Amino acid sequence: MYDIIIIGMGISGITAAIYAKRSNMKVLLIDKAMPGGLLNKIEKISNYPGLINITGSDFAMNLLNQIKDLEIPYILEEVHKVDLHNEIKKVKTKKNTYEAKKVIFALGRKPKYLGLDNEQDYLGRGLSTCATCDAYFYKNEDIAVVGTGNSALQETLYLSEVASKVYLLNRRDGFRGEASLVEKIKNNPKIEILYNVTVKSLEEKDNKISAVNLSDGTKIEVKGLFIYVGYRPDTEMLKEYPILDEDGYIKVNGNFETPIKNVYAIGDVIKKSVYQLVTAASDGAIVIYNMDK
Amino acid sequence: MYDIIIIGMGISGITAAIYAKRSNMKVLLIDKAMPGGLLNKIEKISNYPGLINITGSDFAMNLLNQIKDLEIPYILEEVHKVDLHNEIKKVKTKKNTYEAKKVIFALGRKPKYLGLDNEQDYLGRGLSTCATCDAYFYKNEDIAVVGTGNSALQETLYLSEVASKVYLLNRRDGFRGEASLVEKIKNNPKIEILYNVTVKSLEEKDNKISAVNLSDGTKIEVKGLFIYVGYRPDTEMLKEYPILDEDGYIKVNGNFETPIKNVYAIGDVIKKSVYQLVTAASDGAIVIYNMDK
Repeated sequence: MYDIIIIGMGISGITAAIYAKRSNMKVLLIDKAMPGGLLNKIEKISNYPGLINITGSDFAMNLLNQIKDLEIPYILEEVHKVDLHNEIKKVKTKKNTYEAKKVIFALGRKPKYLGLDNEQDYLGRGLSTCATCDAYFYKNEDIAVVGTGNSALQETLYLSEVASKVYLLNRRDGFRGEASLVEKIKNNPKIEILYNVTVKSLEEKDNKISAVNLSDGTKIEVKGLFIYVGYRPDTEMLKEYPILDEDGYIKVNGNFETPIKNVYAIGDVIKKSVYQLVTAASDGAIVIYNMDK
Repeated sequence: MYDIIIIGMGISGITAAIYAKRSNMKVLLIDKAMPGGLLNKIEKISNYPGLINITGSDFAMNLLNQIKDLEIPYILEEVHKVDLHNEIKKVKTKKNTYEAKKVIFALGRKPKYLGLDNEQDYLGRGLSTCATCDAYFYKNEDIAVVGTGNSALQETLYLSEVASKVYLLNRRDGFRGEASLVEKIKNNPKIEILYNVTVKSLEEKDNKISAVNLSDGTKIEVKGLFIYVGYRPDTEMLKEYPILDEDGYIKVNGNFETPIKNVYAIGDVIKKSVYQLVTAASDGAIVIYNMDK
């Protein structure tokens, strides 16, 4: 029996674990794979105070080393069910059931897709949501990126170093992302921005994407399509509980407690105005500090 | 003329500067001395995600290198007056006046004292608020620490490595700090906790502290007294403006804006439930993100 189980080993969950451990709570971290969450999809991080131009995967490695250094137990198993009905909360993986007095959901968010027919069948065949993972496959090829936010802008710049040409497909006439990134994009001769277009359909050849048809009737011949059109919270396992909002985010109060007592949520899985590494880490500190222990 | 001037180079001010720079704002950082703020008074930081057991001064050095790397201008001058009455805000040091459309106050907090007669005259003569700075002067001496929170506990442990004996003077019968630290204190044979006592007066010999008289009538012979009894915000320069609460903290809304338009405050200078490095950093990201630019 644990004092607290934290599901999710992104930066918010790990920060909560650090603070819980230092409050002498018996804490367990669970995630289905290695730590870091979306961190692992970031090529270069320049806006995290104290770490200068670190890669996302190095940052994730730091976090792993930190929980080892603090002797915080963690288990790499996929949680497929939680039982929050009783005073003792149960967290179930395929192999085991873990029990705790309190549970924190630090489940993060997943990339959204465009909603095209059979879209996800193209994953690994020209479609990607992770430039860091897949850029190399498009060396000296023409590719396209969809999106208007910081992720789209950062990944477009990153991909332009590898690809011969990058089309940035913007469904609007402005960008949501940071002005400094927009400027870099506009000054980069390998990048062409197409405004007011959406993706209508994909064409394939030899079992891979060969072209993208746009809403304005044009076709661009590209070997790859990278999608950065936002996120959805990863809360499938909580559908039966009255703690999700209409978009699937977990509802919490100012102390990050959900409508169910002793059940908390932090990081990208709750709705907030700013989704950054430092804001997620901050949630992890506050939830433990303000918790009745 | 700057888009934004940030006064204070602790972690909240520097984080805001990083985000402002990356939003293409023309930003200036001002502080009277080198960056880091209270960071420089922390011996070892174990609860900041991504950095494992770093010293406060190394962390501060990282922050300085980071603003240099991002080419963020900073000026080491003491601000003694601000003029917030007009649309263009003026920040005055002894040498110069700087102008900006917006100002962020990231002024932090300073240690409180006990309120004894001529107390601050003893600074450097046995009285200290910074173990990291002064521990070495008390090697193999008996000393005392006043306080019940994390700072008092951490510094007591740190001082016990150097001093021959440390009295921990607790005005209550419990501690406000983390349980794990309390446990370490109790298990440390060099530390003696005295409960339900306050400091009544200091005795001196050869122009230095020689003993401390306690409220219960006892006297402890110590060469040093380290005080960790809380903080007060460093907002003297803002007294003429209607933006301070009764304790001198700056009042802000959810976007960290004060009652004066285009004037913001972040970090330890505002009232909140948790004062940690990650929460201060989070403020710095949010204030810029949610600002009309």
